[in-house]
Amino acid sequence: MSPTDPDPHAELRTRAVDLDARSPLAGTRELFELPSGVVYLDGNSLGALPRAVRPALADAVTRQWGTDLIGSWESNGWWDLPLTLGDRVGALVGAAPGQVVVTDSTTVDWFTACSAALDLRSDRRVVLTDAASFPTDRYVLDSLVARRGLELLPVPVTGLRAVLAERGAEVAVLAMSHVDYRTGRLHDLPGLTAAAHEVGALAVWDLSHSAGVIEVGLDRADVDLAVGCGYKYLNGGPGAPAFVYVARRHLPHVVNPLPGWTSAADPFAMERAHRPDDGIARMRIGTPPVLSMTALGAALSVYVGLDLADVRSASLSLTGFFLDALDELLPTGSGVAVLTPRDPSARGSQVSVTHPDAPRLVRDLAARAVLTDLRRPDIVRFGFAPLYVTHLDALTAAVALAELVGDGAATAQAPEPALVGC
Amino acid sequence: MSPTDPDPHAELRTRAVDLDARSPLAGTRELFELPSGVVYLDGNSLGALPRAVRPALADAVTRQWGTDLIGSWESNGWWDLPLTLGDRVGALVGAAPGQVVVTDSTTVDWFTACSAALDLRSDRRVVLTDAASFPTDRYVLDSLVARRGLELLPVPVTGLRAVLAERGAEVAVLAMSHVDYRTGRLHDLPGLTAAAHEVGALAVWDLSHSAGVIEVGLDRADVDLAVGCGYKYLNGGPGAPAFVYVARRHLPHVVNPLPGWTSAADPFAMERAHRPDDGIARMRIGTPPVLSMTALGAALSVYVGLDLADVRSASLSLTGFFLDALDELLPTGSGVAVLTPRDPSARGSQVSVTHPDAPRLVRDLAARAVLTDLRRPDIVRFGFAPLYVTHLDALTAAVALAELVGDGAATAQAPEPALVGC
Repeated sequence: MSPTDPDPHAELRTRAVDLDARSPLAGTRELFELPSGVVYLDGNSLGALPRAVRPALADAVTRQWGTDLIGSWESNGWWDLPLTLGDRVGALVGAAPGQVVVTDSTTVDWFTACSAALDLRSDRRVVLTDAASFPTDRYVLDSLVARRGLELLPVPVTGLRAVLAERGAEVAVLAMSHVDYRTGRLHDLPGLTAAAHEVGALAVWDLSHSAGVIEVGLDRADVDLAVGCGYKYLNGGPGAPAFVYVARRHLPHVVNPLPGWTSAADPFAMERAHRPDDGIARMRIGTPPVLSMTALGAALSVYVGLDLADVRSASLSLTGFFLDALDELLPTGSGVAVLTPRDPSARGSQVSVTHPDAPRLVRDLAARAVLTDLRRPDIVRFGFAPLYVTHLDALTAAVALAELVGDGAATAQAPEPALVGC
Repeated sequence: MSPTDPDPHAELRTRAVDLDARSPLAGTRELFELPSGVVYLDGNSLGALPRAVRPALADAVTRQWGTDLIGSWESNGWWDLPLTLGDRVGALVGAAPGQVVVTDSTTVDWFTACSAALDLRSDRRVVLTDAASFPTDRYVLDSLVARRGLELLPVPVTGLRAVLAERGAEVAVLAMSHVDYRTGRLHDLPGLTAAAHEVGALAVWDLSHSAGVIEVGLDRADVDLAVGCGYKYLNGGPGAPAFVYVARRHLPHVVNPLPGWTSAADPFAMERAHRPDDGIARMRIGTPPVLSMTALGAALSVYVGLDLADVRSASLSLTGFFLDALDELLPTGSGVAVLTPRDPSARGSQVSVTHPDAPRLVRDLAARAVLTDLRRPDIVRFGFAPLYVTHLDALTAAVALAELVGDGAATAQAPEPALVGC
């Protein structure tokens, strides 16, 4: 529009500006380095760069590694990083200290957590999971049950309670995601954990799409084990280390299937037989990747002084406003269908829509500096990381989408964008 | 000594200066940032900082992550890092392209490699290993054989051939280290691999203490699988990712026990059942830790233009000179005994000595800026990373050790240095 045209979205814009001004997170965007003019809605895949990361990494490289050298394992706290970061992540997911360790990748941690849970219920042979889980979670469960001669039952989430009621006595573990990576649906973690416990099963949760943006409440919900991702809402950087939670009551009994020396009670004794640490350190695996951990540690500093309840309410405000804007702006017959629940209590921090030309839309949105991602064949995901995404960003994205599905250019075959994320 | 005293070690010093001047690696030390005055003999535990790391990391953080954001997975080659780095590491261990992937930690990789090897010989039930292997290697094998109902036979290396002759038909896998982390003894990788093959077993090698400093020759020796460490002689930084080698002939058959989505033939199809990649990418696990991988990638650049044969000869020259200097300088009754073989063909790139007061020696050497490490209860390890350690460094260390064991102050109980390494 030219300066003299009336703003066709004046009302939404006024509302966005107002919501941004009243946000409990106003100011946190300044803690991140974001390229100007970019609407970044892919923080559910790769969190943006916190300003604290660069100086922390420079110090870790130049002073700690370059100058202090091997002594840094002690003098700069390298050895304890998995535990010190673990407690800081734990605070964000409702875990009291001593129950979370930051280590390895989400895949590896999912393997260790599920293996450990199965060992704790070795008298049962059914593993229950949501049928729509992230591929890795399913692949790892498939592999585990095949090697142990168990049975994996993938069930739509709406059917989980019925299966627990019918076959509960056989179920060893319910292992599933807190938020569906495709639809953005938030599952009932406390309720499903309780339902699993009622039949004597354990609950293992993948918090990849909830840690840092939803009040998970692991201790309060009595969750048994959990894992989560460091590079989405926790902003730890590409491929940042993941984390594992083991409820304190299980710590004396869990068996780490990848028993590296760092998980031993006395690592430097280098004993012939593995004698695990008494606490959460028994879930450590190899030597911690200090540089990646340093980045994650610096990234976590953006949460200092924040209340997760405020983060959650800012997230819901953003996704709610975006859904409202879509309702108002999308033309009739746009072909866009919203996958994400309207009910805030069932919504994660993303909004997913389907469209027959989703690959073209993701590409054309990117050309307008609105970064989203594609889930084949037809899902466009809009991730709302409330620490740096604003309601004005949400409006820009909704306007762009509405224009792209309304301009009649929707049928050309586009090359598929190859954007990573899960 | 004062400027007017004669140098008591003039002859050794002259020899050191001459050897340094004639070294085929003269000049590579300038590729590293080392604090002045420090004699760093712990590169077998944590390699020193290559100058190339700092700018590479700054670019990865600021431009790639901060500005290019999610698009970096494609535009900045993040997605392929495990494979591109894998080929570069492969070149250093004698592996043709397409057989090495850089991923996860040595512990995780040892688990996947040993698991995959056991799957390839699932009709046999004995696993053979060297009795003195690094604790993690043993712990992981203990865990694997226990879960599969197999038998682990730890045998002194000198007895391996006899056991292969006696029980060869039962042996699935010989899994062991190329260099003993305590003694620095280099084992006969080609010969033992051939001996394993003669009885139909596979050979899996841990190259943690040889990769980057010894001509390993994996392809030439027909090794089946191998793993190695990124943060010792490869200088990738604290906790740098490790690597896995799978011989091309095994690639179509190996099963990754940690089948994350990145190992799938078409990761972005997110298929319900895992269909592994045809090549070495099937050994990928989770999302690659890009920051740690960037540091390793930059570190590998110090090898550009170098011949591994020259690195090996420089290493043997250093350890040989150090042993000569100890022979000359250690006082009678010093209590120091050399553990490392005098035979160059059986020597890795470290010299280990025992002494009843090893903890005090490591501490007092460090006070003189000679950094070594302790292996309980009584081993002092002197690691010689030939890209940045000089013969003059070796002389300084030998002189310091000789003085410390000769000054009669050797009996005080010292607090134990807690230096990490393996």
